[in-house]
Amino acid sequence: MKKIGFVGLGAMGMPMAKHLAASQFPVTAYDIRPAVVEAFAAEAGKGAKSAAEAFAGADVAILMVVNADQARQILFADKALAGMAADGTVILMATCAPRAVEEIAAEVVAAGRRFIDAPVSGGIGGATAGTLTIMAAANRATFEAAKPVLAAMGDKVFHVGEKPGQGATAKTINQLLCGVHIAVAAEALSLAEKVGFDPKVAFDIVSGSAASSWMLRDRGPRMMQADPEVKSAVDIFVKDLGIVLEAGHDAGTALPIAAVAHQLFLAVSGRGEGKTDDSQVIRAYRSLQGRKA
Amino acid sequence: MKKIGFVGLGAMGMPMAKHLAASQFPVTAYDIRPAVVEAFAAEAGKGAKSAAEAFAGADVAILMVVNADQARQILFADKALAGMAADGTVILMATCAPRAVEEIAAEVVAAGRRFIDAPVSGGIGGATAGTLTIMAAANRATFEAAKPVLAAMGDKVFHVGEKPGQGATAKTINQLLCGVHIAVAAEALSLAEKVGFDPKVAFDIVSGSAASSWMLRDRGPRMMQADPEVKSAVDIFVKDLGIVLEAGHDAGTALPIAAVAHQLFLAVSGRGEGKTDDSQVIRAYRSLQGRKA
Repeated sequence: MKKIGFVGLGAMGMPMAKHLAASQFPVTAYDIRPAVVEAFAAEAGKGAKSAAEAFAGADVAILMVVNADQARQILFADKALAGMAADGTVILMATCAPRAVEEIAAEVVAAGRRFIDAPVSGGIGGATAGTLTIMAAANRATFEAAKPVLAAMGDKVFHVGEKPGQGATAKTINQLLCGVHIAVAAEALSLAEKVGFDPKVAFDIVSGSAASSWMLRDRGPRMMQADPEVKSAVDIFVKDLGIVLEAGHDAGTALPIAAVAHQLFLAVSGRGEGKTDDSQVIRAYRSLQGRKA
Repeated sequence: MKKIGFVGLGAMGMPMAKHLAASQFPVTAYDIRPAVVEAFAAEAGKGAKSAAEAFAGADVAILMVVNADQARQILFADKALAGMAADGTVILMATCAPRAVEEIAAEVVAAGRRFIDAPVSGGIGGATAGTLTIMAAANRATFEAAKPVLAAMGDKVFHVGEKPGQGATAKTINQLLCGVHIAVAAEALSLAEKVGFDPKVAFDIVSGSAASSWMLRDRGPRMMQADPEVKSAVDIFVKDLGIVLEAGHDAGTALPIAAVAHQLFLAVSGRGEGKTDDSQVIRAYRSLQGRKA
């Protein structure tokens, strides 16, 4: 059985690592927060004191970190890549810009390892249920060899291309839609609020009509709460729509709707509310309307 | 049984009028095109030679015309309202701005008739199947009296408020979401095209993930066709998002995402392609990218 190193035990990473352990993979995991490493070790696998220790001798090294800079730091600056098995495979599952993924992949391959660009969609719910959508780009043989590992975490595993960066592109397209769908749901429900139309009635109508989206149905109810539980933060979409626009810039493509949506998430983050639930992008609209948000 | 007058036998109106006739209502219908009036008369009810003839003595007068100006012309200038039953009810089902609906309602009520503001959602498919979403605003008694008429055309009949204009507001919120969801689907799929990522693979991923919307699933496949069948035209969203922005303007509310989406539909219409399927808003993006659209 393949030896797996896993770095990044966040809200997504922790359940993903547990699913791997539950599928009988030997998993050694690391996170910058010792408490979560202990929690993982108590329940599922081995804990490590550093990323390099987690990846030492690993056949598969999984990165579920915040961004490309963290992945670079761990693999190259902290030399975790150098300690992997000689024919090991790095699987980068964080949301990164396509160009950053291409650069990291090139450096991993130059060090003699294999690389899979495999971002995910499905949120904490999908990670916990093991039903993530995984968008994997790698040469076919590398993908096939790692497929049982990916299938332990997601039930919709796509081989989207042979070239690293294509997984990140798929995730970019996915996040463009997700971010805009949240922001426009807020635009619609805040219009209802402004004109004195019960937003709950508006939600009942549009969540069952051709106006519906997955995000509208999921985030809409939380938009109508004053201070909802944080399922995913505003700052995640400040980051992810930033990556979308970076990818558009690199491709020489105007993305006017995504650009506007990004500004609205940024406005809420700029109020010091970036850690609130992303449904609270509706506060940007309430501010524009001069109402208490 | 109530005598119904129906004006506007377009792609939506024709199946709606047929459902009324199939529900045993006596329907007299008019359209500016004599051929469709004949088709209706041959199959379902009576044909009329003018709107005034269709509404003469009617208990219920239904308007499924293009816009508020046509409704005003028929009711007031052509004097069709004056010929209705003395306690008749006008049901305006066209998509109009809330303010225009309020004005028409006031004039109808001043003439001693009742008024229901009842726009619909669900497109030709919903009209044909009799499964439209109907967003009705009227006082409760008027709504209840007309409910069997509405239920003959739609299976999701909402009483959204007591005040005319509130139905139009619900439709406005609905169309804001519909229009933006189509445009952003085009933004996402055109990004895939531009970077050489198979848009069919992108569609397969996002139509099954949290990135999905009703419009993405419905319009996405037609965006990838060069010249798809016209289910609903680009110019419909030029009009409907125009109404959305007018409603926002009247309410003193900025609708930045809807405004951008409107510009994209307008760009395609300005190329002389307003009669193409609304999925072809993707041509605006291809133009921006300097590619053959």
